[in-house]
Amino acid sequence: MAKLIYDFRSDNVSGIIPEVLQSIIQENQRSTDTSYGDDEVTQKLQGQLADFFNHEVLVFPVISGTAANALALANLTPPYGAIYCHEQAHIHMDECGAPEFLTGGAKLVLLPGNNGKFGAEILNNSLKNAGKGVKHHVQPAAVSVTQATEAGTVYTPAEITAIAKLTQEHGLSLHMDGSRFANALAYLQCSPADMTWKAGVDVLSLGTTKAGVMGAEAIVFFKKDLAKGFEYRLKRSGHIISKMRFLSCQLQTYWQKGVWDKYAGHANQMAKLLAVGLQKNPSVKRMYHVEANEVFVWMPKALLDHLQAQGAKFYDWQKDDKGAVIRLVTSFATTKKMVEGFLGLINS
Amino acid sequence: MAKLIYDFRSDNVSGIIPEVLQSIIQENQRSTDTSYGDDEVTQKLQGQLADFFNHEVLVFPVISGTAANALALANLTPPYGAIYCHEQAHIHMDECGAPEFLTGGAKLVLLPGNNGKFGAEILNNSLKNAGKGVKHHVQPAAVSVTQATEAGTVYTPAEITAIAKLTQEHGLSLHMDGSRFANALAYLQCSPADMTWKAGVDVLSLGTTKAGVMGAEAIVFFKKDLAKGFEYRLKRSGHIISKMRFLSCQLQTYWQKGVWDKYAGHANQMAKLLAVGLQKNPSVKRMYHVEANEVFVWMPKALLDHLQAQGAKFYDWQKDDKGAVIRLVTSFATTKKMVEGFLGLINS
Amino acid sequence: MAKLIYDFRSDNVSGIIPEVLQSIIQENQRSTDTSYGDDEVTQKLQGQLADFFNHEVLVFPVISGTAANALALANLTPPYGAIYCHEQAHIHMDECGAPEFLTGGAKLVLLPGNNGKFGAEILNNSLKNAGKGVKHHVQPAAVSVTQATEAGTVYTPAEITAIAKLTQEHGLSLHMDGSRFANALAYLQCSPADMTWKAGVDVLSLGTTKAGVMGAEAIVFFKKDLAKGFEYRLKRSGHIISKMRFLSCQLQTYWQKGVWDKYAGHANQMAKLLAVGLQKNPSVKRMYHVEANEVFVWMPKALLDHLQAQGAKFYDWQKDDKGAVIRLVTSFATTKKMVEGFLGLINS
Amino acid sequence: MAKLIYDFRSDNVSGIIPEVLQSIIQENQRSTDTSYGDDEVTQKLQGQLADFFNHEVLVFPVISGTAANALALANLTPPYGAIYCHEQAHIHMDECGAPEFLTGGAKLVLLPGNNGKFGAEILNNSLKNAGKGVKHHVQPAAVSVTQATEAGTVYTPAEITAIAKLTQEHGLSLHMDGSRFANALAYLQCSPADMTWKAGVDVLSLGTTKAGVMGAEAIVFFKKDLAKGFEYRLKRSGHIISKMRFLSCQLQTYWQKGVWDKYAGHANQMAKLLAVGLQKNPSVKRMYHVEANEVFVWMPKALLDHLQAQGAKFYDWQKDDKGAVIRLVTSFATTKKMVEGFLGLINS
Repeated sequence: MAKLIYDFRSDNVSGIIPEVLQSIIQENQRSTDTSYGDDEVTQKLQGQLADFFNHEVLVFPVISGTAANALALANLTPPYGAIYCHEQAHIHMDECGAPEFLTGGAKLVLLPGNNGKFGAEILNNSLKNAGKGVKHHVQPAAVSVTQATEAGTVYTPAEITAIAKLTQEHGLSLHMDGSRFANALAYLQCSPADMTWKAGVDVLSLGTTKAGVMGAEAIVFFKKDLAKGFEYRLKRSGHIISKMRFLSCQLQTYWQKGVWDKYAGHANQMAKLLAVGLQKNPSVKRMYHVEANEVFVWMPKALLDHLQAQGAKFYDWQKDDKGAVIRLVTSFATTKKMVEGFLGLINS
Repeated sequence: MAKLIYDFRSDNVSGIIPEVLQSIIQENQRSTDTSYGDDEVTQKLQGQLADFFNHEVLVFPVISGTAANALALANLTPPYGAIYCHEQAHIHMDECGAPEFLTGGAKLVLLPGNNGKFGAEILNNSLKNAGKGVKHHVQPAAVSVTQATEAGTVYTPAEITAIAKLTQEHGLSLHMDGSRFANALAYLQCSPADMTWKAGVDVLSLGTTKAGVMGAEAIVFFKKDLAKGFEYRLKRSGHIISKMRFLSCQLQTYWQKGVWDKYAGHANQMAKLLAVGLQKNPSVKRMYHVEANEVFVWMPKALLDHLQAQGAKFYDWQKDDKGAVIRLVTSFATTKKMVEGFLGLINS
Repeated sequence: MAKLIYDFRSDNVSGIIPEVLQSIIQENQRSTDTSYGDDEVTQKLQGQLADFFNHEVLVFPVISGTAANALALANLTPPYGAIYCHEQAHIHMDECGAPEFLTGGAKLVLLPGNNGKFGAEILNNSLKNAGKGVKHHVQPAAVSVTQATEAGTVYTPAEITAIAKLTQEHGLSLHMDGSRFANALAYLQCSPADMTWKAGVDVLSLGTTKAGVMGAEAIVFFKKDLAKGFEYRLKRSGHIISKMRFLSCQLQTYWQKGVWDKYAGHANQMAKLLAVGLQKNPSVKRMYHVEANEVFVWMPKALLDHLQAQGAKFYDWQKDDKGAVIRLVTSFATTKKMVEGFLGLINS
Repeated sequence: MAKLIYDFRSDNVSGIIPEVLQSIIQENQRSTDTSYGDDEVTQKLQGQLADFFNHEVLVFPVISGTAANALALANLTPPYGAIYCHEQAHIHMDECGAPEFLTGGAKLVLLPGNNGKFGAEILNNSLKNAGKGVKHHVQPAAVSVTQATEAGTVYTPAEITAIAKLTQEHGLSLHMDGSRFANALAYLQCSPADMTWKAGVDVLSLGTTKAGVMGAEAIVFFKKDLAKGFEYRLKRSGHIISKMRFLSCQLQTYWQKGVWDKYAGHANQMAKLLAVGLQKNPSVKRMYHVEANEVFVWMPKALLDHLQAQGAKFYDWQKDDKGAVIRLVTSFATTKKMVEGFLGLINS
């Protein structure tokens, strides 16, 4: 019997969900189709996502979340713009300066806030001191929220709406980094519309790779005029893929009722199970609410060593003398057995 | 019976060769693996391509040829550099300024030349007038050759060597856009080494998507020091793919003996067949030598209309009053029946 | 007695005309004034140039012609744009890629044409093949004409109007590199309006340094909406000068009736004198019409050697086995004595 | 009698010191000279500054401090680099993203610290968490200190040395923004060498405009290899000035013994006088040590209104309900009478 793998490093260490792999196989049965995104599948995807969001959309499939985020932002800001985001945001911490590069040199302005979220008030204060209209300062252009956040928490529609009220007042665009969009949606149990355009989101990075496809993200514009010239940006950064239909079919398959909700719901449930089990060990301290598919806990060094000796895999977030905060991420492929096995190691 | 499709628009209108699709399915059987290219498959790919080229290499899989070309060039030139290429080169004509953008503003210097190729002499003349060391002028940094060329012809190793002699004299790097590398290799019947590092190529865009995979190209550095900081460039342009192993397995499968040669050889043969058949019609004029998998011919308007009315697909390259130059591209999926059917339309 | 200097290398080897130097001295008598261009002198300059052009203008003083050209173009093109210019244009040949850099990677498309000028027809042909709306190609955004040209010739208002007709049809902006604007104006004897906005020019680089100031150029927008965000572009490229009033007073002084026309007229006259004198030597061949303040001639090697031995200074433009094309530039400081002395060397 | 002007907005609201104006007039007596910095004056400036710093230097005159800082940094960092600076640094707050732009997208990492200075310890902590060698993160490349700081304080050579120890350990370059270099030097009474290369500074922005010239800064490289390709960067950002000798003569004149020390010493003394006088009013609170030529104080609203009603000019730094922190800057042109008059308004 194969040894159970306790791999909680990220949701992208997992492979492909069967429905999606099947759709690739099936797409390959079809004959030739136009390359570079002018194919039938990509065209149909537009309609499907319009239905999904119950709103007119412009959809552009890309291969990575970094591309989705930074290119979306590049269309929302002039090169002398400022983009407001949480100080822990992926676009600031983990994309090697992609937003700065792909925007032509815009600046990220960092906002503090508990549980990986910044509130409208903190944004408002920062905007007040931005020096709007003064040539010595970068000019406020966009705000980016991450859903679910880097802390595994989820903005409520009301929280997003409060932020959007400010972006509208100041003439800014609101971007959502939906790297774990499905997990947030499964947690909130609201409609995709509620969490996006109805709350004031203008452009969404619709994360799908971590959710369980081979490699496909989508940039979704809820306002057509914000997409002006976007295809040229994609092309010149190498993000118009020639056999695009094989990306589009992944997106099409994943974002069906009965697929995304099943898998994202499962991942969230596994995170919950982990969180509950970890609480039983008094030496383990939970850091944030567990809302989506990530659990952050502090553990003493001895326990960390024990887990790693048993082959468990996860990333350290912050080390101190006595232990470390670690991140545990669940995915569509995480099984109850894995969680229980891992908890068994903890509590043994 | 399904109607035969005469689709000669490009090799990227075709799907995935069975061996490669199978490798994706198989990779998905494996358990979790590290994301962002630090996985086993990507590591093994390095060794496999080192064997293939019989030389130490550094390999970086990416999703598009534009990314491969422009990012490779970005590591070969300072932002104030000049990149020499044929005036018909893909990097100049068809990448929406990606080299200019991803290099931070370098300039392409265009060289004329018959059959889609420039010779060493023309390069030499251009370099003599480049204003090396003069601050008002962009500085020669790299040369890019396309193999097979945009005209469907192929540089001989001797021709490449003559160009490389100049790049070495002037301290420049030599890049090969190998978008149709397999076709060129199948035509030349030389070793991969002969056509690359032995002839003086420093960095190669190893095209594989058009050859028959779902979506995977590789940037191959033959000199390690030219790859300095390359991963950061990839990341900040959105080209570090999280489930990289699924790209790497495509490359691994395609570049095996018995795979690449079989499929590329077939595509070339189909092009030959097309060319021979087209010659029988005296109103059709061949433009270039047919060496790889592309055929360029001029046809009178009436014939073009007839073909299109029958559902044949191809791109116009240049129109005039009486007809047009069209491009016909064959792929792994082009069958003898398709070619014969298409020729039947022509000569009917 | 001081030896006469025969320095025809460029108009920027000369110093400062007395009126302009005086204006700097006078400006320094004034008290403090707001920095970074919000001073009284810069404000007044706006009005003065509006009168000069008989049109509403937005004026931004900068320190160099390269900054003026490349930053103006940066506001006229998206980063994925194409800028059409003559193949000998300064922006292509002599600015080390500044337009590519400051636009964020736009591409210059080069047009041929005699006497340093391209005509409307050649532009039209190029635009027809530009691939407008196709994502693989950079998108036509701006056209740049040089007045006077790099060949010392001058576009007539009718020639500019014909080009502008095309830019309007295609929705492009028309930029004029007026590095030697005063010389062109003095030659044409038309109004500043006739040569610019009335002929369809949208943005002008109003060259003034070569004309005789210490260091000051101005970017002049004839359409306000094209200047959107321009101050931020200036600032982030280091071109908002803190004691701007000392640049503005140079511009103010130079562009007065009785100043610019006197000095530019003189420089043109000296070029004419040179041209006429050179014609007397049958071994010297004139290359272009002498319209502004530049003379291009071919001379045999022996004559070149003789001139240089006598201390005459000028730049080679193109060498061949038997001689070279050289450029002779006159300025406000060129005297009749210098020209006659130089001609004496030639014809001795 | 002219009314006294109480203008403490910045040192760049003042004009030109007489020695410098005289040098421009004198330079204009000379004949023609080579343009674009290849003139005699610029060549001599190299030697003079080498003597001044007692070290081999490469010197590049530019027109603005923003250009000096951002272009210097652009040569010290790859586009995927991180530049560490104080959170109040001019390069972050007041240059509209110039460093991000001119570096091709590098990121500024902000460090806290009292009195406008960050210490070695805080830098060390930040570097430890930088993720060196990890492709998802921008890579530490340079550190920038401001001398005198934005708070009007001055780093001691020992403090700079402690920072430089870290930059050397980590293979980073150390940049000094010397916008008010002369004021810092006059305060420390050390040698220019002690404050720069002896303390580990690699590249200096030698601010001179605020000190009293018309418009001239210099980028001073203490290590030749760090200046590789720098002239091309200057050119393509529009910062090679054609009549460069008129900038160089300003620098040459200012950085003579008996000039810089006289004027900077005077400005510092005026700031001291201001500070001492302000202390007499118990409602005024000093914010930082007054070391160079800037005084930051908090004042109640009534006093601010009174001062402004009397025509006094200064900038608010931070407002609260009851008053504001204001900045008062003295210059070479500030007289004892102005200071005493202004203090008279305060204490009347």
